Amino acid sequence: MKKIGFIGLGHMGGPMALNLVKAGYALKVFDLTPSALKKLSAAGASTTASAIDAANDVDVLITMLPSSPHVNQLYLGECGLLKTISGQPLIIDCSTIAPDTARDVSTAASKRGLEMLDAPVSGGVAGAEAGTLTFIVGGEAKALDRGRAILECMGKNIFHAGDHGAGQVAKICNNMLLAIQMIGTAEALQLGVNNGLDPSVLSNIMNKSSGNNWPLELYNPYPGVMDNVPASRDYEGGFLVDLMSKDLGLAMEATLSSKSTTPMGALAKSLYTLHSSQGHGDLDFSSIQKLFSKKGSKP
Amino acid sequence: MKKIGFIGLGHMGGPMALNLVKAGYALKVFDLTPSALKKLSAAGASTTASAIDAANDVDVLITMLPSSPHVNQLYLGECGLLKTISGQPLIIDCSTIAPDTARDVSTAASKRGLEMLDAPVSGGVAGAEAGTLTFIVGGEAKALDRGRAILECMGKNIFHAGDHGAGQVAKICNNMLLAIQMIGTAEALQLGVNNGLDPSVLSNIMNKSSGNNWPLELYNPYPGVMDNVPASRDYEGGFLVDLMSKDLGLAMEATLSSKSTTPMGALAKSLYTLHSSQGHGDLDFSSIQKLFSKKGSKP
Amino acid sequence: MKKIGFIGLGHMGGPMALNLVKAGYALKVFDLTPSALKKLSAAGASTTASAIDAANDVDVLITMLPSSPHVNQLYLGECGLLKTISGQPLIIDCSTIAPDTARDVSTAASKRGLEMLDAPVSGGVAGAEAGTLTFIVGGEAKALDRGRAILECMGKNIFHAGDHGAGQVAKICNNMLLAIQMIGTAEALQLGVNNGLDPSVLSNIMNKSSGNNWPLELYNPYPGVMDNVPASRDYEGGFLVDLMSKDLGLAMEATLSSKSTTPMGALAKSLYTLHSSQGHGDLDFSSIQKLFSKKGSKP
Amino acid sequence: MKKIGFIGLGHMGGPMALNLVKAGYALKVFDLTPSALKKLSAAGASTTASAIDAANDVDVLITMLPSSPHVNQLYLGECGLLKTISGQPLIIDCSTIAPDTARDVSTAASKRGLEMLDAPVSGGVAGAEAGTLTFIVGGEAKALDRGRAILECMGKNIFHAGDHGAGQVAKICNNMLLAIQMIGTAEALQLGVNNGLDPSVLSNIMNKSSGNNWPLELYNPYPGVMDNVPASRDYEGGFLVDLMSKDLGLAMEATLSSKSTTPMGALAKSLYTLHSSQGHGDLDFSSIQKLFSKKGSKP
Repeated sequence: MKKIGFIGLGHMGGPMALNLVKAGYALKVFDLTPSALKKLSAAGASTTASAIDAANDVDVLITMLPSSPHVNQLYLGECGLLKTISGQPLIIDCSTIAPDTARDVSTAASKRGLEMLDAPVSGGVAGAEAGTLTFIVGGEAKALDRGRAILECMGKNIFHAGDHGAGQVAKICNNMLLAIQMIGTAEALQLGVNNGLDPSVLSNIMNKSSGNNWPLELYNPYPGVMDNVPASRDYEGGFLVDLMSKDLGLAMEATLSSKSTTPMGALAKSLYTLHSSQGHGDLDFSSIQKLFSKKGSKP
Repeated sequence: MKKIGFIGLGHMGGPMALNLVKAGYALKVFDLTPSALKKLSAAGASTTASAIDAANDVDVLITMLPSSPHVNQLYLGECGLLKTISGQPLIIDCSTIAPDTARDVSTAASKRGLEMLDAPVSGGVAGAEAGTLTFIVGGEAKALDRGRAILECMGKNIFHAGDHGAGQVAKICNNMLLAIQMIGTAEALQLGVNNGLDPSVLSNIMNKSSGNNWPLELYNPYPGVMDNVPASRDYEGGFLVDLMSKDLGLAMEATLSSKSTTPMGALAKSLYTLHSSQGHGDLDFSSIQKLFSKKGSKP
Repeated sequence: MKKIGFIGLGHMGGPMALNLVKAGYALKVFDLTPSALKKLSAAGASTTASAIDAANDVDVLITMLPSSPHVNQLYLGECGLLKTISGQPLIIDCSTIAPDTARDVSTAASKRGLEMLDAPVSGGVAGAEAGTLTFIVGGEAKALDRGRAILECMGKNIFHAGDHGAGQVAKICNNMLLAIQMIGTAEALQLGVNNGLDPSVLSNIMNKSSGNNWPLELYNPYPGVMDNVPASRDYEGGFLVDLMSKDLGLAMEATLSSKSTTPMGALAKSLYTLHSSQGHGDLDFSSIQKLFSKKGSKP
Repeated sequence: MKKIGFIGLGHMGGPMALNLVKAGYALKVFDLTPSALKKLSAAGASTTASAIDAANDVDVLITMLPSSPHVNQLYLGECGLLKTISGQPLIIDCSTIAPDTARDVSTAASKRGLEMLDAPVSGGVAGAEAGTLTFIVGGEAKALDRGRAILECMGKNIFHAGDHGAGQVAKICNNMLLAIQMIGTAEALQLGVNNGLDPSVLSNIMNKSSGNNWPLELYNPYPGVMDNVPASRDYEGGFLVDLMSKDLGLAMEATLSSKSTTPMGALAKSLYTLHSSQGHGDLDFSSIQKLFSKKGSKP
């Protein structure tokens, strides 16, 4: 059975690592937070005192970190893993980061003779816990083949987006589009309500027409239209405004560096930053509905 | 068998009327264009010399006109139908117009003791010909019951959106959202392509993820990704930029009159007007993809 | 000395009429609010019981009403002035309304053989009281010559923008641009502050550089940079958000009807409507600065 | 007399260095382009074979480079100046770059015991040649005092914006605001023209009203309104679209890194990138007027 090193045991990384333990893999894990380590230890993983200890002499190394600078520092910093690591692990970075950072790290890994994949996920904490994440993977096909069985212990859908960095690009594009259509859906629903329509009736009509999209099907932002979505529990939980705003920031960086034109994406970024600055950063991202409601009215 | 009057035999109204003839109804039809009348006459409808002749003494009167002023003039003008009509027809206006105009006309009809529905359609010329249109209906439920069998000869889905004008509001909201997600999809695809992704691969990933929407499923705007869509025939046919721009104009009027906030919708209107002003008004609305392509690159 | 009829004695119309009384004109005035009439009566104007009484048998008729429907109703309604008025007054409408309404009314006036000017003002209540308003006039040059001396009793600058309706168009364009540069100024100042700059230093630099504009010179939106502006008294008084939002609504209607493209203007409209919906409709329009401040920070 | 090293002799740096030669300073200059060196040599400067040769043993070192990576590489690269330079020059970097880069370099300079200023300019090639540039300076006041006499040989206005990086921030804010009001002015003028106004008349009215701004005063974007501006010579020369787009990119990066909200700035960036992608990158930035003109109409 393969040995896996796993660094980064937060809201996402923790349950992902747990699923690998449950699947029978031998895990060495590291995180800066002792309580995160304790949970994995209780489940049967061996904990380590440093990132490099978790990374040495494993078959696969998985990292799940908050942002580009963390990944850059871990792999390419002064005492970075790629300078010191022993063994020939397949490296899978599941962090959502800038495509340029993903390419920089994989290029450095390649110089060391190591295969690397960028494999950002979607599906949220619930998907991480249930093992039903979607992995959007960049890198060489044979490296993906080498890691596929392990990814399948943590996720349901595994997409090969293209070469190194392509996983990040595809995730960024998807989430930018998601933000645009979430805001668009909120605008359309409020416009209907302000003109006398019932939001459930309007949602149902658009859901069966050319206005249909993922939020209308599964994640309606208007309170009371759907059960079991954040809109029906005061926008608690789910995918936070500040995380969406971070992903939109990556989309804007990719837009700038590739001289692309994304006016809708840029407006979505402005609106989510505005919404966060008004104190809603830790609500679910469907709470953008609140921005369009009139004062004193619901929602 | 019921007698039907039908006024407005253009690209949409013509095939709609034909389907009613085929279903066995006795039709009196009127249009300002002789060739349109000839086609219906050949199919078995009786043609009339004026709108009022088509409207008198029928069980159901259907109108399909280009815009609010036309509808206003036909029903409420100096010699408008509501001043002169004989009989007690159910009136069904299938034009896409301002909700306020729809309400004005139905209020006037009601004063004359006539039931009226606003019933704008979606589905395009192809849907009109195949009898598979979607009708989004505003007005009283019992009036809709009275007209349902006839609408079912022309369409597949019939939604009751609410009271008078609600059919127009729902259609406007749907099409505003459609425009937003079409543009968002075009931006996301081009951003991916500009960062090295294959548009088909990216479309497939987003289609199975939270970025999914109606254009990604059925109407991909990037050339070569889907067969049998306008993007794969130089954006010919389909739903024209200028028609989408007209519907967005109605959405903006509804936004202004209800003091709503629709920043994405407003940006969509600006971008479609810009696209039209650059000479693309009679291309399919998915041609907005061209706005985001780089000079010299494809598309 | 000429006789003047004056209808509409609100925040603007009241002091405008007072300045005409002070200049020695014989005024007949009407308003629906008794207290407004009382103030003019005390100053020496004769009050009337109806609009038509104020309009009959005067040399010049001035109207100052809140919006297009009011103007439309007063002049063109069932018992509208243009059906009943006696005498040959020059008509000057100082309301800020849709250019189309201005043209409709002046066309109807012309059919009755009456000369008419659209003459919307800028300068606010302070300018109305001080007699320093700016008049932006549409209509024929000789009609303007006929009314110029009277306008000069109420204002300092009198611009001839063009034919009927042109006064309204020019005012709408000016105020749209004002809104855009007020928001742009607020964004730029907050971006500087968020990156460590002193707002006064930055204002001074931009004021002397290519970023200069009217708000930077006379109406800085950042609290504490200028004395005697609304920003330095919690945005009280001045030109209200809801009035700017109304003018932006007229700009959007003109955009739609002329198939123009005004993406910045449309975004300005969205942002002012949003700002108003969050409870700031009766603050000065420079309060848009608040939209860009971070939670817990100033302003 | 002080010795000055000058690196970067392009469109801006060339004439700036010439003005220093004319003022009597002893210049050592370097550029990668031989023709640029030749021109300075002819004027009396001594040319060097490398950047480090120009930088060693001078009293003041001035650099004028195209973008952040160039500055980063020159000062902080593997053989960067700050590792090898001899002497104690005051360093003045006149490049327009990211504030973060400016701060990184000045921090490194400070560790070496060297004073440094970021001093981006505005005023264009004409201002560089005439010695009338505006310098917007970040850094310590005493360092600015040390360099002021030299800056005054090249420019007319010298602003102290604040600490290290503040010069860059202030320039970015100014140019973002300039872009917003240039676009806003173009929109307003075209809206007026589309509604029947003469662009000169409308420009004059707004110039004397609250719509006034720098473009209306000195740089009108509508062809034929002003002589001697790019709009009246097919938008040739001036401040290029691609340079404005670069500055807007810096503004967007500063927005992202400071979690600011700049919706107008973001829209301006999208519109300039779009305009460039349609083939207008090397026109003057007032050519954005073309984006709003209707097909077949002028401009």
